[in-house]
Amino acid sequence: MDPAAVKAAFIALQDRVVTALERIDGHTFQRDAWQRAEGGGGETRVLEEGGVLERAGVNFSHVQGARLPASASASRPHIAGRAFEAMGVSLVLHPRSPYCPTVHMNVRFFVATAAGEAPVFWFGGGMDLTPYYGFEEDCVHFHRTCRDALAPFGAERHVRYKQWCDEYFHLRHRGEPRGVGGIFFDDLDEPDFDGSFALARSVGEHFLPAYVPILERRRSLPYGERERDFQAYRRGRYVEFNLVWDRGTLFGLQSGGRTESILVSMPPTVRWRYDWHPEPGSAEARLYDEFLRPRDWV
Amino acid sequence: MDPAAVKAAFIALQDRVVTALERIDGHTFQRDAWQRAEGGGGETRVLEEGGVLERAGVNFSHVQGARLPASASASRPHIAGRAFEAMGVSLVLHPRSPYCPTVHMNVRFFVATAAGEAPVFWFGGGMDLTPYYGFEEDCVHFHRTCRDALAPFGAERHVRYKQWCDEYFHLRHRGEPRGVGGIFFDDLDEPDFDGSFALARSVGEHFLPAYVPILERRRSLPYGERERDFQAYRRGRYVEFNLVWDRGTLFGLQSGGRTESILVSMPPTVRWRYDWHPEPGSAEARLYDEFLRPRDWV
Repeated sequence: MDPAAVKAAFIALQDRVVTALERIDGHTFQRDAWQRAEGGGGETRVLEEGGVLERAGVNFSHVQGARLPASASASRPHIAGRAFEAMGVSLVLHPRSPYCPTVHMNVRFFVATAAGEAPVFWFGGGMDLTPYYGFEEDCVHFHRTCRDALAPFGAERHVRYKQWCDEYFHLRHRGEPRGVGGIFFDDLDEPDFDGSFALARSVGEHFLPAYVPILERRRSLPYGERERDFQAYRRGRYVEFNLVWDRGTLFGLQSGGRTESILVSMPPTVRWRYDWHPEPGSAEARLYDEFLRPRDWV
Repeated sequence: MDPAAVKAAFIALQDRVVTALERIDGHTFQRDAWQRAEGGGGETRVLEEGGVLERAGVNFSHVQGARLPASASASRPHIAGRAFEAMGVSLVLHPRSPYCPTVHMNVRFFVATAAGEAPVFWFGGGMDLTPYYGFEEDCVHFHRTCRDALAPFGAERHVRYKQWCDEYFHLRHRGEPRGVGGIFFDDLDEPDFDGSFALARSVGEHFLPAYVPILERRRSLPYGERERDFQAYRRGRYVEFNLVWDRGTLFGLQSGGRTESILVSMPPTVRWRYDWHPEPGSAEARLYDEFLRPRDWV
């Protein structure tokens, strides 16, 4: 097990993603290094009011703690209360164009240690896509790239992680998925450190190929106030999911994480409207009818 | 104990508040009656894009359940699992003008019953003010009216409920109060049903006198894009509080409440911006420096 190698890979991933996005956007990300009183810190890289990205955050963090939080040891009672370190890359991109979907990607690594005991580690992560106006070919491309990321790790892997994603990114209070899904995994420690690290790395490396072609294809489509308004309305669902259901966001906010880095996932402009429903047959209704349903996109 | 009398008083309060707001706003609230599969229902009254109110919701609900939720019996283990009924009026007003504060008011009544046992009841509620640009005289007026609402129920009552409000409406992840507070109470059953019902009724009846003069005083002040922008930014804090910390909102969303009625508290337009701070000495900085601090406003 080699946490330093994971850290180096995660930092390299953050850098690669930011560099690629800066090339596409034409603007430079702001860089904010921060430290945490309890141990560790991170670097938040943010772009607001860019050429393509209205708001984008690409976080790296590496924190240590004296006691593993209950939320992290729930499925592993034998390591409750151990010291731990956690590191990860987490990003959310909110493009300005309503034709470009919002996207989220995360890879993370935990190690729990205790004197005289073997360390326990696991990886988690995934990526998922949240369109405002859906395009079949974009969804198929995203999901196929997710499948490719997992292909070297067993044929059933993608099926499981795709379903896990559909289950996780679900707004239970709306009975509605957050978007069209992707892949999600957690508690990964098999077959061994090298194998699970390779899988997490592969997920990270497939993010740009999964998303950039979609951004390039849709960024120049003309749109108007109607589409921006629908985007702002639908972004409300993103806020609701992240603040009500997302375990990572809630754990961060409730445990003294760096608020501005965590909430860089919030969309830039959001609207709520009472009991609104799109007109049947409209482009907006298509999102609900054809995209916000668990489907086999591959 | 007379739940029917509470229900009648709550419905009359909803009606009185809506009628007064319609007179001020010049627009009519939409009326939405709804039923709940598990028992009970409610009426949501909503105004969007009004003359003064950009978004306003005044809810009445009365629901029954077979088992008291854990969150409601936590401080009363002896009634865990009892059947219950809950009723309340809850309102949030988001005026369009950044010079008019957002306001929240709630009164609620619970009864828990079990065969062969005396029913257990309690009241809760309160009101609190969330300015974007603060005015001392508004805060003083609001808090004095809260004090007047509680004055017949003992001199120490206002001190306690004012502090409870400061503690409750606090964004722990920001170390920041939601606004300038007001009053908050829960678990009220003393001295008896009549006494606690009278207190809850008094809080409800003091809502219009507490808030309407502020709305009238500020509604015509001219403002521009800068003030609207700051309002949208600060409204993000309202969203964060309600979705991350507010027990009523979370309980409702997680237990199958009517989502659109619960989330009528969300502001109409909201913005998030990374690590933003107002310029020292600006009108926006004054909000943080002079108003977002627990103070003795009376």
